[in-house]
Amino acid sequence: MIGNIEWTFDMRIVVWNEFVHEQTVDSVKAVYPQGIHVTIAEALRELLPDASVDVATLHDPEHGLDEARLDQTDVLFWWGHAAHDRVEDRVVDRVHRKVLEGMGLVVLHSGHLSKIFRRLMGTTCMLRWRDSGERERLWIVDPSHPIVSGFDDEYLDIPSEEMYGEHFDIPAPDELFLVSWFSGGEVFRSGCTFRRGKGKVVYFRPGHETFPTYHLPQVQQILANAARWAMPSGSKYVGEGRHIIEPLER
Amino acid sequence: MIGNIEWTFDMRIVVWNEFVHEQTVDSVKAVYPQGIHVTIAEALRELLPDASVDVATLHDPEHGLDEARLDQTDVLFWWGHAAHDRVEDRVVDRVHRKVLEGMGLVVLHSGHLSKIFRRLMGTTCMLRWRDSGERERLWIVDPSHPIVSGFDDEYLDIPSEEMYGEHFDIPAPDELFLVSWFSGGEVFRSGCTFRRGKGKVVYFRPGHETFPTYHLPQVQQILANAARWAMPSGSKYVGEGRHIIEPLER
Amino acid sequence: MIGNIEWTFDMRIVVWNEFVHEQTVDSVKAVYPQGIHVTIAEALRELLPDASVDVATLHDPEHGLDEARLDQTDVLFWWGHAAHDRVEDRVVDRVHRKVLEGMGLVVLHSGHLSKIFRRLMGTTCMLRWRDSGERERLWIVDPSHPIVSGFDDEYLDIPSEEMYGEHFDIPAPDELFLVSWFSGGEVFRSGCTFRRGKGKVVYFRPGHETFPTYHLPQVQQILANAARWAMPSGSKYVGEGRHIIEPLER
Amino acid sequence: MIGNIEWTFDMRIVVWNEFVHEQTVDSVKAVYPQGIHVTIAEALRELLPDASVDVATLHDPEHGLDEARLDQTDVLFWWGHAAHDRVEDRVVDRVHRKVLEGMGLVVLHSGHLSKIFRRLMGTTCMLRWRDSGERERLWIVDPSHPIVSGFDDEYLDIPSEEMYGEHFDIPAPDELFLVSWFSGGEVFRSGCTFRRGKGKVVYFRPGHETFPTYHLPQVQQILANAARWAMPSGSKYVGEGRHIIEPLER
Repeated sequence: MIGNIEWTFDMRIVVWNEFVHEQTVDSVKAVYPQGIHVTIAEALRELLPDASVDVATLHDPEHGLDEARLDQTDVLFWWGHAAHDRVEDRVVDRVHRKVLEGMGLVVLHSGHLSKIFRRLMGTTCMLRWRDSGERERLWIVDPSHPIVSGFDDEYLDIPSEEMYGEHFDIPAPDELFLVSWFSGGEVFRSGCTFRRGKGKVVYFRPGHETFPTYHLPQVQQILANAARWAMPSGSKYVGEGRHIIEPLER
Repeated sequence: MIGNIEWTFDMRIVVWNEFVHEQTVDSVKAVYPQGIHVTIAEALRELLPDASVDVATLHDPEHGLDEARLDQTDVLFWWGHAAHDRVEDRVVDRVHRKVLEGMGLVVLHSGHLSKIFRRLMGTTCMLRWRDSGERERLWIVDPSHPIVSGFDDEYLDIPSEEMYGEHFDIPAPDELFLVSWFSGGEVFRSGCTFRRGKGKVVYFRPGHETFPTYHLPQVQQILANAARWAMPSGSKYVGEGRHIIEPLER
Repeated sequence: MIGNIEWTFDMRIVVWNEFVHEQTVDSVKAVYPQGIHVTIAEALRELLPDASVDVATLHDPEHGLDEARLDQTDVLFWWGHAAHDRVEDRVVDRVHRKVLEGMGLVVLHSGHLSKIFRRLMGTTCMLRWRDSGERERLWIVDPSHPIVSGFDDEYLDIPSEEMYGEHFDIPAPDELFLVSWFSGGEVFRSGCTFRRGKGKVVYFRPGHETFPTYHLPQVQQILANAARWAMPSGSKYVGEGRHIIEPLER
Repeated sequence: MIGNIEWTFDMRIVVWNEFVHEQTVDSVKAVYPQGIHVTIAEALRELLPDASVDVATLHDPEHGLDEARLDQTDVLFWWGHAAHDRVEDRVVDRVHRKVLEGMGLVVLHSGHLSKIFRRLMGTTCMLRWRDSGERERLWIVDPSHPIVSGFDDEYLDIPSEEMYGEHFDIPAPDELFLVSWFSGGEVFRSGCTFRRGKGKVVYFRPGHETFPTYHLPQVQQILANAARWAMPSGSKYVGEGRHIIEPLER
């Protein structure tokens, strides 16, 4: 429960995970015994000591994303893969509305095919993939970007990951900050930002469930930076439309 | 019918209109006796002599946009206002898919709230408005853009139009080529382009049904240029996703 | 001197002004008796209590922008008009290099024709203008943007200003957050951001020397937000180029 | 001489090459006996039968780029490497002005450090490199883009090339259509477009002088498409600035 004490935190984060593979596949359970969401939440709590970090899954009532919870959420992380279709449309509607009203959203890895990401993008969000555990190097193509703050090196290395390759069918991102190289021959736009309504959206590619990607310190740093970047900002929301009667006096 | 002779045309255009106001409101009928779609189609035929230009409306079977017709369409124009909700979802699905596969789409005026535009944008597409017939001046903010080819002046003037004002809740356009000034005090991003999948999307603001906007030569020139710009181009479509088995030999 | 105590401040700002009109034109002196730079610096000190805010002018040795000073500067504000040509090229070279290395730069009003802005843009940066003291309304076209944080309304109003009109010959900005309406019939992209190297660049239009624009609280809020937004961020700078000998082991 | 007959051609292209390596290094002469410019010009003549294609080099008077020649040029290709500093500033000034006035510019490979490209970008344009002849695969990341028209596959392959790696210090391109994968572990934004003034600028990475890259049909197709895309378009040029006296009657 974050209700009574929400005023004491600078950031209120919820990490959402479908939490399916970790309960059904032994090799995944071995990597993320309590679920991907718990691993990510623990990392964020350590890196963002002023933040309140909560978790939610598909299996909670309203998938843990009822109106009251979202009213108390600044940034929502989203991991899904096997159960995109089991996410209720009314929950997707709600999350979509909250993003347009200013809630940050960080979509991870196979979340590229989630209902919420596809609705925000307006495209298929399809891509090429190969799950053979290969080397990924994520090059920083915008060293000025706040999401890569704190990196000494020009890239992030992940020893073994699923490959995602272009063409990634998304609108041209507003900002592109990471491009992946895979040893098998592909490239991918792995760190992207999008503005939708008043909400800031981040897509970050790595994180296949069979690899310990979210245990890597560099990856955790990206996630913490992404949360900071996606925090609500700006003016009063004005997306509701308005019939204006009076012209301005000149 | 465009079937048998499609190979003789360089461009195959369909102008879609809900065609409601022109049949029910006398003041609109006076301006567009045969419908907005017919006025636009006639202008395009004159300005694009190599193009095949056809029309379709809400009242045709499948709204005139069945699979066979869309297979023969390079660029689709869209005007709607009163009847957005009467457009069948299966037709919207089909148009959406065709845009992602490469069909150009030119969305006009109140089409900003059409199902197809909102689905492609992922936002509310809401805005401010005032229908008091005021002066609009559309300034060219990207004089290099092909859609403003042929203009001697730095702006387009429309003596009397409905006002649309910011904030217009769309993703940041890939290209912004026109910004409107309204005498009543507002501005608006009136000429925008977006890429979605392989399709090129244009939004062009003017064209309220009670004003003779689509009879203006400068406006017709913009529509013809937009059709040319939105023509399919590029490589084979690759948005379908693909499981890749073999890595590249190094 | 900010040297010994720089470690106690979160932000180190320098406000640069050519400081010519205020010493030579009575009507300008009446509005900014100590110079535009002092008015801006005082506002920033009040709105950003953690910041160190210093000033510099054309008339200081090295225009007040020697290597040591710039090494201690996070964000530089720039106002110039009559004396662009009197800014030494070696100083422009130095500021240019510092921006590419990560220093933020906020270019104000007639600074659009400064050597530093034109060098960063690569274009003429020319525009239309009319100095007849007319009403300007700046519409927020990206309500999510941090630079418009804290605004309740959908626009900023300035009762009397010089007009700047399109076409403004700049590269398409990375982000467009304000568009001006002028009562005389023009529009202008008045709030723009650009990334150049590791540096973040803001252009903010208002601020003709004969009007008390920088005394307005809303304008001061934009300047403070712009300073925050332009703070250095990101990874280690890598713009220096590098000959790489060894390929990666696959 | 293209003077008397310029009116008979749809496109007037000039391919500029410093033409140094091909006269001094045997291994380069073996690949491009008449110079890189001649190989490119021949390919463009074949693929663009309606175009007039001319060549120019560093060694011509005014480097072959006098005012009269540029007045007759729609699109200029630029290849340089060893002699960037020997290009006269007055010629760079002229080419810069012509680009801002609408002439297309296609910058190839090591032209990233040419005076003209750096001036248009406003950044260092530095990058990482390794000249060990490795495999490059250029992935199409925007399959809708006209410059990749005619490609059946999702990538272009080059068996042996010099590596260029990120970070490439350019402003974020307006459009990114190709990203390279190199077998040695790097990625690169290899196909980029930029608008500057009224001119369209393309950067295309491949083409080290020791490899037969410009003899490859796929590469030649990209060059021809780039020429078509960079053709002047749009409204009358308005970048010259203008003092406007009269406000608009409302």
